[in-house]
Amino acid sequence: MGRVTERRKVVRIRDGAVSSRPDTLVTEEPLEIRLNGRPLAITMRTPGDDFALAAGFLVSEGVLANAADLRNIVYCAGATADGVNTYNVVDVTTAPGVAVPDITLERNVYTTSSCGLCGKASLDAVRTTARHPIADTPPLRVEPGLLSSLPDRLRAAQRVFDRTGGLHAAALFDENGELLDVREDVGRHNAVDKLVGRALQSGHLPLSRTILMVSGRASFELAQKAVMAGIPMLAAVSAPSSLAVDLAAETGLTLVGFLRGSSMNVYAGEDRVALRAPAARG
Amino acid sequence: MGRVTERRKVVRIRDGAVSSRPDTLVTEEPLEIRLNGRPLAITMRTPGDDFALAAGFLVSEGVLANAADLRNIVYCAGATADGVNTYNVVDVTTAPGVAVPDITLERNVYTTSSCGLCGKASLDAVRTTARHPIADTPPLRVEPGLLSSLPDRLRAAQRVFDRTGGLHAAALFDENGELLDVREDVGRHNAVDKLVGRALQSGHLPLSRTILMVSGRASFELAQKAVMAGIPMLAAVSAPSSLAVDLAAETGLTLVGFLRGSSMNVYAGEDRVALRAPAARG
Repeated sequence: MGRVTERRKVVRIRDGAVSSRPDTLVTEEPLEIRLNGRPLAITMRTPGDDFALAAGFLVSEGVLANAADLRNIVYCAGATADGVNTYNVVDVTTAPGVAVPDITLERNVYTTSSCGLCGKASLDAVRTTARHPIADTPPLRVEPGLLSSLPDRLRAAQRVFDRTGGLHAAALFDENGELLDVREDVGRHNAVDKLVGRALQSGHLPLSRTILMVSGRASFELAQKAVMAGIPMLAAVSAPSSLAVDLAAETGLTLVGFLRGSSMNVYAGEDRVALRAPAARG
Repeated sequence: MGRVTERRKVVRIRDGAVSSRPDTLVTEEPLEIRLNGRPLAITMRTPGDDFALAAGFLVSEGVLANAADLRNIVYCAGATADGVNTYNVVDVTTAPGVAVPDITLERNVYTTSSCGLCGKASLDAVRTTARHPIADTPPLRVEPGLLSSLPDRLRAAQRVFDRTGGLHAAALFDENGELLDVREDVGRHNAVDKLVGRALQSGHLPLSRTILMVSGRASFELAQKAVMAGIPMLAAVSAPSSLAVDLAAETGLTLVGFLRGSSMNVYAGEDRVALRAPAARG
């Protein structure tokens, strides 16, 4: 965990005044994810929780669905000339009987999300690979006032952002608004993969009755990750994309965007937002 | 260009008041990029400028360096069951003699950036594939006041963002602060690829004596794209990552972050910022 930030010299200009001093930056390093020894993907990430990142990535890809699918995860020595372990290559071994996709990647290409040839194909791909259908009985029902409290709780839980300004955050809350976990990363998708991977490792998939809160926008990819982990509600500070809304509508995910102050937009699955209850709470 | 935004019904909550109305969302659709007929990458993007996006992506990957490397780009019919062209698959054919990497991608995996096994390997990969070394003679020299004016100019040039809140923007300025081009996309990297691809198509690579301004953060990937296009200066509204700073320092790219009001941080290549000149301009 010691590589989350780094120091670099910076020239600061403030109203024409120039000064030079060390500044704290978020660390960005490549991580190669191998599946049963074969290179699968490379993602640019903030070091830390690398095993969780790899596990969560494989949940999103439909390879892992629960802890029993996972045999082990290890760091393997990087291919540096002197054989030094860079801690930037992890190998995930699946349990016997787990079907693994046939993926080859012969070059250093950075991979973050599966999708199809058209929006509909992308939606179909998620629906057919999802192993945790969103099924909450009785239905999750969250008051708007509780949702409004989440951005501040997310911000309070962030440790690195204030120092660097360079991190995306994702947090899991339970239906009472209690923080379950929070992760930060230079990449939005990585922060969510780390949350989901930690949940898988601790036997908590599917993440029923939870709310995934992200610091930025809600893309198709983030909605996909929520669906694949069985999360029934995704809330974002900023805007969703068209395909994120379509995926939410098709899979039964509740999608909340522009969650700011006492305002929000509900783009899909509004049954889980207690619209008729008093908005004030806490 | 007609698919940049879409309408969806949204439930709006404002201080407890609930209403339902159509809302404008940024369109997100997958684009498959094929190279000489072989699937190379899939990226989630906002439709429009797809040929430029594919061309710019291949500049970043080191395949294309100027217009002569490119034979043609066409839409090919997507693999939908009914054979309808989804306009989500483009095939780039290189000119005879252009070396193409051996990349296979047997599954729908979303690819955005090349990188190595460690930060150093990532830097080396860019340095060895860059075909437009940053070489400005006489050196570009930009006053802080001019840089401070760029975020507002970028915002003024954005057409879609105000309607949807869901787009990242990237703009190219010349050394006098004149806007050369601006692109928007649901993905940060795509907006830059579209800028670079349009420049390649019109014979303007390398983009010497230009400034690339991005609406968000400066990751390694965005710095890589600037370097591969021969852009000498990258300016970002928000924070850079450690690896972006390292790449800038190693390749001679000027990297400006936290460009807000009359403040900014210069992380590398400060020779191109006229620090001793009066900051006031315009």
